[in-house]
Amino acid sequence: MDVPGWPLDDRGAAYGDGLFETVLVRDGQPQLWLAHVERLARGCAVLGIPVPERAELERLLAAAPPGLQVLKLVLTRGSGGRGYRPPLPPTPRLRHQWLPFAPDTRNWVEGVRVRLCHLRLGSQPLLAGLKHLNRLENVMARAEWSDDAIAEGLLTDSDDRLVEATAMNLFWQRDGRLQTPWLGRCGVAGTLRDTLIERLGIDEVDVSVNELRKASAVWVGNSVQGIWPVRDLEDAEGVALANWSLNSVHRAFQAEAHALLGFETCFEACFDTRFDNLGK
Amino acid sequence: MDVPGWPLDDRGAAYGDGLFETVLVRDGQPQLWLAHVERLARGCAVLGIPVPERAELERLLAAAPPGLQVLKLVLTRGSGGRGYRPPLPPTPRLRHQWLPFAPDTRNWVEGVRVRLCHLRLGSQPLLAGLKHLNRLENVMARAEWSDDAIAEGLLTDSDDRLVEATAMNLFWQRDGRLQTPWLGRCGVAGTLRDTLIERLGIDEVDVSVNELRKASAVWVGNSVQGIWPVRDLEDAEGVALANWSLNSVHRAFQAEAHALLGFETCFEACFDTRFDNLGK
Repeated sequence: MDVPGWPLDDRGAAYGDGLFETVLVRDGQPQLWLAHVERLARGCAVLGIPVPERAELERLLAAAPPGLQVLKLVLTRGSGGRGYRPPLPPTPRLRHQWLPFAPDTRNWVEGVRVRLCHLRLGSQPLLAGLKHLNRLENVMARAEWSDDAIAEGLLTDSDDRLVEATAMNLFWQRDGRLQTPWLGRCGVAGTLRDTLIERLGIDEVDVSVNELRKASAVWVGNSVQGIWPVRDLEDAEGVALANWSLNSVHRAFQAEAHALLGFETCFEACFDTRFDNLGK
Repeated sequence: MDVPGWPLDDRGAAYGDGLFETVLVRDGQPQLWLAHVERLARGCAVLGIPVPERAELERLLAAAPPGLQVLKLVLTRGSGGRGYRPPLPPTPRLRHQWLPFAPDTRNWVEGVRVRLCHLRLGSQPLLAGLKHLNRLENVMARAEWSDDAIAEGLLTDSDDRLVEATAMNLFWQRDGRLQTPWLGRCGVAGTLRDTLIERLGIDEVDVSVNELRKASAVWVGNSVQGIWPVRDLEDAEGVALANWSLNSVHRAFQAEAHALLGFETCFEACFDTRFDNLGK
């Protein structure tokens, strides 16, 4: 069956007037489902788009292909209105795609190299945290490098505060505390981030890259890929800023996160073969 | 013939990864065509999207319906890439729509009431000036009011500097000088604005709303609607901030702009019946 696309006058396509979610689904079971549904509802409240029925979303899950999949949900304000002016009431449009998925287990195990991006995220408190469809900043940041050896790019705001990575959230440990950037001005509040904050009591803070260099462990991650330990950090010109040896703190945080995503088994298997010297 | 829509995986629909233009076309003749083509090319250069062939754009014009129309062009990076990462090379997708149009001549003649918006535009110098598809800020600003007596909303940035109106640029005269906000941080550089700056030597400045209150004449306008003189300015709570009597300066600026859009005849007719006391 053909999945329908978007009409030419859909406001999502015209203005990015909508929201999306990418949900990890294992054999029909969505991971962090409640967090995804809640974030979508938060976005709907801010944008003034009716929240889709929970039952409608869950009907989609009933048709999940087997194995590990990403369910991409896109909800737009639909068509209508006059220019930017939204139609009242809106007739939202929900579309979905199933994308077969395999996590990058090598990044799990070996950790990753990340760079700082040139692009500074603009501040927009009204939309901060939401996974809305205005993602040109993320696209432009991701277009800054093409070297596959660099797994992610870190983004700061115009006042040099760390915010996130292009498609992941950022976490670190310092002085025994887990921390992550505060996302009240810009950035996407990932569902894995939200859930880990609640479970582990992670502090949401404003810090510069210089502060990050003092961390004892750094990670990037999201609800689809899981958690990648950061091994090397470099600036936008490729100059090394910091590096970290992977340690048990890295692994413990990863284990917490991956348990939430149902990645335990695979994760342990990866370790047992290559990190049998590491206790957890 | 059905105009095709967007595939589900188009990056314009997914991320707002593209650009658009709305061109006033009179009996197949595009107004300010060069300015539109140039702005589209500027946007392509920044986003890294190949510029459409001029001949391809002009083939669309050959099929223009008669009379006054708006040609909406949308150019996206097409499909592909991996998440935010753009495909290299991209295969852009160009879509268009013809929308019959009639300018709001009452706003031309009588002037308009405008309000200040609560929303502050985020600063993103990389994308400032471009007519890209990330327009949620404009949508949210336009959603702030529903009173049809208010024709436009003025937008400031996070430092209280005036930027634009939700779908128009802003112009004023003060101490005999024409001025418009500088758009190096945010806002859309309208083709009418660009053309008027070049023809009339308008200053691009950073000013607050308080400064605007000292103007002797204020206008909002774009390349489709033409120029609306601002008669009343109020804050976001409806408290009057300033008002202006329409005078010959208003009309002279309007006449300059409308000549560029081919609106002269209609414009003069509107005046002759209602403003025969005004010299130009």
